[in-house]
Amino acid sequence: MLAAVVEEGRVVARAKAPTPTGGPAAVVAVLAELADGLGGSDRIGVGSPGQVAQPSGVVVGAPNLVGWDEPVPLLQLVQDATGAATVGVDNDVNVATMAEHAAGAAAGRGDVLCVFMGTGVGGGLILDGQLRRGANGLTGEIGHAMFRPDGRRCACGLRGHVEAYAGRAAMEAEARRRHDDGEATDLVARAGDGRMKSNVFAKALGAGDAVAASLLDEAVEAVSVGIASAVMVLDLDLVVVGGGIAEKLGPVFVARIGDAVGSRLFPGSRLRVVPAALGDDAGVIGAAQLVL
Amino acid sequence: MLAAVVEEGRVVARAKAPTPTGGPAAVVAVLAELADGLGGSDRIGVGSPGQVAQPSGVVVGAPNLVGWDEPVPLLQLVQDATGAATVGVDNDVNVATMAEHAAGAAAGRGDVLCVFMGTGVGGGLILDGQLRRGANGLTGEIGHAMFRPDGRRCACGLRGHVEAYAGRAAMEAEARRRHDDGEATDLVARAGDGRMKSNVFAKALGAGDAVAASLLDEAVEAVSVGIASAVMVLDLDLVVVGGGIAEKLGPVFVARIGDAVGSRLFPGSRLRVVPAALGDDAGVIGAAQLVL
Repeated sequence: MLAAVVEEGRVVARAKAPTPTGGPAAVVAVLAELADGLGGSDRIGVGSPGQVAQPSGVVVGAPNLVGWDEPVPLLQLVQDATGAATVGVDNDVNVATMAEHAAGAAAGRGDVLCVFMGTGVGGGLILDGQLRRGANGLTGEIGHAMFRPDGRRCACGLRGHVEAYAGRAAMEAEARRRHDDGEATDLVARAGDGRMKSNVFAKALGAGDAVAASLLDEAVEAVSVGIASAVMVLDLDLVVVGGGIAEKLGPVFVARIGDAVGSRLFPGSRLRVVPAALGDDAGVIGAAQLVL
Repeated sequence: MLAAVVEEGRVVARAKAPTPTGGPAAVVAVLAELADGLGGSDRIGVGSPGQVAQPSGVVVGAPNLVGWDEPVPLLQLVQDATGAATVGVDNDVNVATMAEHAAGAAAGRGDVLCVFMGTGVGGGLILDGQLRRGANGLTGEIGHAMFRPDGRRCACGLRGHVEAYAGRAAMEAEARRRHDDGEATDLVARAGDGRMKSNVFAKALGAGDAVAASLLDEAVEAVSVGIASAVMVLDLDLVVVGGGIAEKLGPVFVARIGDAVGSRLFPGSRLRVVPAALGDDAGVIGAAQLVL
């Protein structure tokens, strides 16, 4: 969990703590401690994993958080725990998108799709300067756009999605499968006992690991197909790409995605694909936007 | 060319003429004759093929019209030829989308993607009650969303697009290819000397033609993959499907598309896929919206 004091779109102080696994009450307690340690505030914005109902700030589903199986009235819990007069809660990818639009790579632009390549592949959409939420609060799920119909199974259970090829977790699973099949790769050894983090892929690629190169080629292809479909439907001229994989592999990787998207668009398209500008701070900067 | 007098979202009189191939001046002359024959009006709305710049009403590119290779100031030409005080021009698919939203299958809804399966596969997008145009006036190009990356070449020159599998022209080309390869099909004979129209596919399907069934299966699959990607990115709850193929094959065909899209969405999705309600009148009803 990352907490920060944000002033005029910039982080002026920050504090971190591991996300506790004791369910919503434990998470809110840590949040209140972090806020207190930073001097407190009467306005607290929160970016949360999962689907967040508006304007209630109830987290309806957060499969990556332990013990959050039932709807969690997070806005109310944070208000009770901190005494803050104004609390806003939105999805973590939504707030990161708001941040890139307010103070990052999409500053001053009317329309932008932000794509975050992390454990999964998330996204958020700004149209006419406003974050679009959609019928179910699930706008921007570029990770679940189609790459290869009936292809690899995605974490969501469906097949062929972008995330099943371009999400870090899916890439890790495929790397381990290829390693078990006898393909020569250092990825498993580099990961050691832990997860195969983004910088593991970055280092293996730099060292000429063929499996890492192949997985990243496929990730570029998958995410660019998803982005191209979105751009065709929305006629966007700006896409921002961030998240762990994009951060660790850098602007060259984002440029590869841009080239791959461009090859799938009509000639003369003015689309630009640019790296996210705010890194890990996007979440806290965007959360602050919720209460400004 | 279809012209109509539209009152309160309904067609009260109509007139038709073949589209002349003598370039913009010939088309505008026919338009003026049709308008005159219907009694004239000081407000004329026009739906045109191609990309239409706003608010100028200049048709920037209409590859399906003979002699429209250069930008055509259609709004100005219509105003000069008819003397109408108010003229509006927009893309034909955009106006059909506006019509389905104003008076058809999406009446009263805030967000809808309209998909029209004709010679190609076009689409228009209404968000928050407003037609979205986009950076290049090309919003809603669901026919050029990705179906099978690096698959069949699309009329646009790129590969793997929805339209390359679900557009009537692409289906006709594939039917002729399979026929030439010796597959048993009546499609070519049924088409005779002309184009393989939508009702040719409908009749062949009804008669148990295996190639027609296979091509229509593939069309359902392709368009549903494109729609599913769009719904994932936009979190829509309504998609309208119209156009020649959908009209001739009827609600059962649209329901098949709905089922195929549903199988690619998260469980619990509230998306409905419904047939267009206005048929060929969508164009003129939507064009009228431009000047109301």
